[in-house]
Amino acid sequence: MADPWQECMDYAVALARQAGEEKYPSHSFIGEESVAAGERSVLTDNPTWIIDPIDGTTNFVHRFPFVAVSIGFVVNKEMEFGVVYSCVEDKMYTGRKGRGAFCNGQKLQVSRQEDITKSLLVTELGSLRTPEIVRIIFSNMEKLLCIPVHGIRGVGTAAVNMCLVASGAAEAYYDMGIHCWDMAGAGVIVTEAGGVLLDVTGGPFDLMSRRIIAAGSKTVAERIAKEIQIIPFQRDDDN
Amino acid sequence: MADPWQECMDYAVALARQAGEEKYPSHSFIGEESVAAGERSVLTDNPTWIIDPIDGTTNFVHRFPFVAVSIGFVVNKEMEFGVVYSCVEDKMYTGRKGRGAFCNGQKLQVSRQEDITKSLLVTELGSLRTPEIVRIIFSNMEKLLCIPVHGIRGVGTAAVNMCLVASGAAEAYYDMGIHCWDMAGAGVIVTEAGGVLLDVTGGPFDLMSRRIIAAGSKTVAERIAKEIQIIPFQRDDDN
Repeated sequence: MADPWQECMDYAVALARQAGEEKYPSHSFIGEESVAAGERSVLTDNPTWIIDPIDGTTNFVHRFPFVAVSIGFVVNKEMEFGVVYSCVEDKMYTGRKGRGAFCNGQKLQVSRQEDITKSLLVTELGSLRTPEIVRIIFSNMEKLLCIPVHGIRGVGTAAVNMCLVASGAAEAYYDMGIHCWDMAGAGVIVTEAGGVLLDVTGGPFDLMSRRIIAAGSKTVAERIAKEIQIIPFQRDDDN
Repeated sequence: MADPWQECMDYAVALARQAGEEKYPSHSFIGEESVAAGERSVLTDNPTWIIDPIDGTTNFVHRFPFVAVSIGFVVNKEMEFGVVYSCVEDKMYTGRKGRGAFCNGQKLQVSRQEDITKSLLVTELGSLRTPEIVRIIFSNMEKLLCIPVHGIRGVGTAAVNMCLVASGAAEAYYDMGIHCWDMAGAGVIVTEAGGVLLDVTGGPFDLMSRRIIAAGSKTVAERIAKEIQIIPFQRDDDN
């Protein structure tokens, strides 16, 4: 049997090359790989590609069936378009500012649920295992679960979790400690599907802040912001 | 657009009818629906169909893309075969005692990982919101996460979570408070894929006990049993 994951990897590599410096020499690029290689990730007004070739690395290692290629394109610090390809599901999510969001050509629409007690949430447990951080993560989930909400899920990738919100399958996603390349592709998909992005404080969303609430309605987003305790993380551009 | 969920529902209803009393008048049947209708769910030696037409009801309501039809067939209290159809993914999982487990015809094999620190776990937060139960659920997750493990996921259906273990995408699933109809279909799929089923005490698995550890290796299963605090639930056959 052909390895279903190889296609994903090939696609990611091809994308990274095509979208790379060869084709748009004047553009900027931010990605997990460039940061790991020591480059700074400061967002300027320059057209900027924010790329995560494999969102869901732990899933990838385990072949847990959610892995995404995430590409966000930001100009003047505004998200212009986003592409999230959920490889194993073969779902191509796209969003373009002012022109809607789609999954395999089908228009996306968030759930407009305003009642958090009728909501399904998505979040992740993060990758840090510091007792204090883990304690806050579970305490936040516990507070939200006991509001009560219908449930809390997590498929292991920020990008796919956000696309589930864009699709209306979940009412909201919140997370702290993730990076701009986890959010830049799906961010505009959520807003173009009618959703809202907020900071976990309830203030405006900041792509470099490493935290997000993405929801189908502002009411649900604000309620989550009200409940959760903030975990401090160093900003993506503080390097 | 055709409703992708309607097919699932139609399939469930057709199955319940076909497998029903008309065709096998001497067989016994246990299911969420019959119990809700006041029937007792005592497992005898009689050939018994244990059916959940919709595993993942909350997902179903939210159109979160994991919903399964689960059918287990038990004779002399031994699981003979199991069928789990994950409707939205269109994945048909089957397992027959002594003859292996398959997904859409492809043979399944669990991960044989014996090191829990290299494991990905799946579990659920349950449907009860009693503070004491919720506290134990999160405390168990916290203990396991901090061993550490690679991560904890949950897609919202016991049957699909177990099939992910059978597929090797996750090393183990544990849960308490679920029912025999959530486990009877996928149980034999896990064991036929080379996995083990244990009670959360570490003792033998009991289909009517409302709790399970399903894992790719006995070592990982026993380690989970060692870590988690047990939440008491009334047995399925105690009615």
